[in-house]
Amino acid sequence: MTTNENDKVSRRRFLTQASLAGAGALLGSAGTGLLGTAYASEGPASVAPGQNIRSRGYAAFDNSGVLRPWEFERRPLGDDDVLIEIKYASICHSDIHQMKGDWGPQRYPQIPGHEIVGVVTAVGKNVTRFQVGDRAGVGCMVDSCLECDSCTHGEEQFCEKGGTLFTYGYPDRRSPTGITQGGYSTNIVVRDHFAVHIPDHLSFQEAAPLLCAGITTYSPIMQATLQVGDKVGVAGIGGLGHMAVMLAASKGAEVYAFTTSPGKAQDILSLGAKEVVVVDDLSKLRPHRARLDYMISTIPTQYDVAAYSSVVRPYGHFTQVGMPDAFRLTVNNLGLAVSRVNFNASLIGGIPETQEVIHYCADNGIRPRIEVIDAAGINDAWAKVVNKQARYRYVIDAATF
Amino acid sequence: MTTNENDKVSRRRFLTQASLAGAGALLGSAGTGLLGTAYASEGPASVAPGQNIRSRGYAAFDNSGVLRPWEFERRPLGDDDVLIEIKYASICHSDIHQMKGDWGPQRYPQIPGHEIVGVVTAVGKNVTRFQVGDRAGVGCMVDSCLECDSCTHGEEQFCEKGGTLFTYGYPDRRSPTGITQGGYSTNIVVRDHFAVHIPDHLSFQEAAPLLCAGITTYSPIMQATLQVGDKVGVAGIGGLGHMAVMLAASKGAEVYAFTTSPGKAQDILSLGAKEVVVVDDLSKLRPHRARLDYMISTIPTQYDVAAYSSVVRPYGHFTQVGMPDAFRLTVNNLGLAVSRVNFNASLIGGIPETQEVIHYCADNGIRPRIEVIDAAGINDAWAKVVNKQARYRYVIDAATF
Repeated sequence: MTTNENDKVSRRRFLTQASLAGAGALLGSAGTGLLGTAYASEGPASVAPGQNIRSRGYAAFDNSGVLRPWEFERRPLGDDDVLIEIKYASICHSDIHQMKGDWGPQRYPQIPGHEIVGVVTAVGKNVTRFQVGDRAGVGCMVDSCLECDSCTHGEEQFCEKGGTLFTYGYPDRRSPTGITQGGYSTNIVVRDHFAVHIPDHLSFQEAAPLLCAGITTYSPIMQATLQVGDKVGVAGIGGLGHMAVMLAASKGAEVYAFTTSPGKAQDILSLGAKEVVVVDDLSKLRPHRARLDYMISTIPTQYDVAAYSSVVRPYGHFTQVGMPDAFRLTVNNLGLAVSRVNFNASLIGGIPETQEVIHYCADNGIRPRIEVIDAAGINDAWAKVVNKQARYRYVIDAATF
Repeated sequence: MTTNENDKVSRRRFLTQASLAGAGALLGSAGTGLLGTAYASEGPASVAPGQNIRSRGYAAFDNSGVLRPWEFERRPLGDDDVLIEIKYASICHSDIHQMKGDWGPQRYPQIPGHEIVGVVTAVGKNVTRFQVGDRAGVGCMVDSCLECDSCTHGEEQFCEKGGTLFTYGYPDRRSPTGITQGGYSTNIVVRDHFAVHIPDHLSFQEAAPLLCAGITTYSPIMQATLQVGDKVGVAGIGGLGHMAVMLAASKGAEVYAFTTSPGKAQDILSLGAKEVVVVDDLSKLRPHRARLDYMISTIPTQYDVAAYSSVVRPYGHFTQVGMPDAFRLTVNNLGLAVSRVNFNASLIGGIPETQEVIHYCADNGIRPRIEVIDAAGINDAWAKVVNKQARYRYVIDAATF
C-alpha cells in the first residue's frame, strides 16, 4: 500500500503542477502518457469541449439475447470525467441476464459490459487522479453522490441518496441515449472517481475480469476475515467462482469447490482448490454437512440454498453473489434454521476495494483464466456462458468493435 | 443457576434413595408429590406396566383446520419416561399451519399442541430428573438420539442422527396411533430429558406459552449477544412477538416493534417497546432504514424480507423465527445485498435453554399475556389467531377436554 500511496502522491503533485501550467481539459493520445497542448482531434477518442463523443460497440436491441454492432454517442467530457479508450471488455453472466430482461424490462439499444480496461485519452479540468496515458479500469458503476456515509466510506454501490449509477442500462439524463452504456464498445466517459488504476505488471486482458468477477468475490471474502486453514466453500465455478477459488486459496484457506461440471475438476484443482465436489445430485452435499467455515455461492439461478448452506458449520456465514432471475431466491426457512447459517448477499464492492483487488491480484500472481475473442464472437460466447462452457472468462478485444 | 443445580442434586439424591428402596416405575397421583407404593389405578393418568395410557383431547381429522374431541391411547410408560397430567396447553400458530397441511401432508387424527404444562404423575425406573408431583413442561420435541454432538451440546432440535422427534404428527412406532400426539389433551408420555421444570413462582397458565413462544424468541435473542442500549426490532407482534418485545427489553435493548395491527400499539408499549411502527404499507419502513442493530421476525407467512431487513444496520443480523407455508420464503437477493444484513433462521431452542427461559421469565417477572379458554373454544380461538385477534396467547384449560 505504501508504494501505491506514493504513486498517488507523485501523480497528484505532477498534475497539480500541470494544472498550474495550463487550464481546461488535459488531453492527449492513447498510450503516449504525454499531455497534449490542445484538444486531441483525431482517432476514435477525439473530443471537443461540450460535444458528444462518438463510440461504437455491440448492443442488444431487444430481449432476444442477441447483440449487433451499433454506433452511438456518449456525453461530452465533463470537468470531473475521464475518457477511456477501451482495450478489452470481458463478458459477465450479468450482461446476459440484464439484456434478456431477467432483472426487469430494459431500454434498448443497450450496450452491456462492466469489466472494462483501457487507456485514458482525456481528462476533465478537475481530474487529479488520472492523466492521459494512464492504464485504467471501470467496473459495475460509474457515478454516485460521493457525499453520503456509504459513498465516503468506500461503498459507493450503496449510495444512500440512491445515486449509484450502474455502468449500463441505468437512466442517465447526461447520456445522449438516455441510459448508461457499457463497455462492449470503443470508449467510455466516466467520472474519475469511478475509474481505477491498472498497474503495469497486470495485462489489460487479465485485468478486465477483476472489475466485476474479481471484486465481487474479493469483497465478501475479505469481509469474512478468514483465518489461515479455514475451510471455504465456493459454489458455482464460472467466471466469479474461479476467481473466488484463487482468492480464498491465496488467503490460506482450504478451498472446497462445488460444481455441476465434472469436466472442470482438474482446472479447479489447478486453481488451488483442495477438493472438488461434483454436485450432479444434491445428495452429494450430504457427506460435507457442517464441514466448512464459510461458503460463497456464485450460482446465478434459483437453487436449493438450504441444501448448499448445510455444508457450512452452524453459525458460519454463507454469501450469495450470483444474482438469479428477478433477483429472487426462494429459501427453505426450516432448512436454513437447521443449518444455523448466516445467509447474506453481497453486491460487487466499493471503488477503494476495487482498486485493492486489482493490486492484490497483480502483486500475488492471481490471474483469471481467459479466452480472448473478437467482437463477432460475442453471441457465440454468450451461449457458451449460459451453457457453462466458458473456461472461465471471455475477454473481447475492443479493437474488433 | 446454583439454586437450580442444588435442586437437581437434592432431587437426584432423593430419587437414588427412592430407587434403592423400590423398583420399577415410581408412580403417584397428580399434585401430591408423594410416591405411590404401587401403580396408580385411578384417574386419567392411571398406568399399568406395558399397557397403553388412555388420553383424550382435541384432534384434527383432516386439513380443514377444525378440531373435534377425540379419545386415543399413548404408549406405555417406559423406563426413561415421565407421564404428565396436563393442566394447560396453549395455542401456537404452528399448530394451525401443521394441521392445515401448510408444511406438508399430515396423518390424522392428530392432536396438536407443543406448549404443555402439567404435573408429573408417574416416572419410569431410570428417571432421576423428575419425581411424581413435580410441575413440568413439554415443548416442541419429545425425543432425540441424545448422543450426537448437537444433542450433547443442548441443541436436540438439530439431532445429527435425524432423531429429533417433534411433539405432534411425527412418525413414532412406539405410539399406538403411529405418530406423536400433542398437548391439546389430558396427558402426555415423554422421555424425561424432554421435560423441563416449572418453578412454583410461575403459574401453569403463564408457563405454557414459554415452551414454544418463549424459547423460540429467547434463543436467537441470546445468540445475538445484545448490549444494553442496542436497538432491537421485532416484526410481527403476536404470541412470539410479544414475548420477543419483553425479552429484548429485559436485556436492556431499545425495542422497536413492527406490527400491521394499529390496535396493538398501546399494548406493545406497555410490554416495554420504545416505539411501535405500524406497517400498513412497506413505505413505513423507509424512515427506519439501517436504524437497528438486530431484528427478529415472527411473521409466519410470506412477506418482503428484504424490505424489513433494510431497517437493520449494514452487517447486522436478522433472524426469522416465523415459519411460512411450506417453510418457503422468497427473498430479493439484491435487496438483501443492499441492506448487507446477515439473515438467519432459528428453530425453537434446545432443552437446557428451554429450562433457562422458564427460570429467566419466572425470576424476572416476564409473563405472557394470555386468555384462558375451554377446549370448546379452540376452533374460535384458532380463527382469531389467523385473523391477528389474539391478545396474545390462548391457553386451553386441560380440565375441559
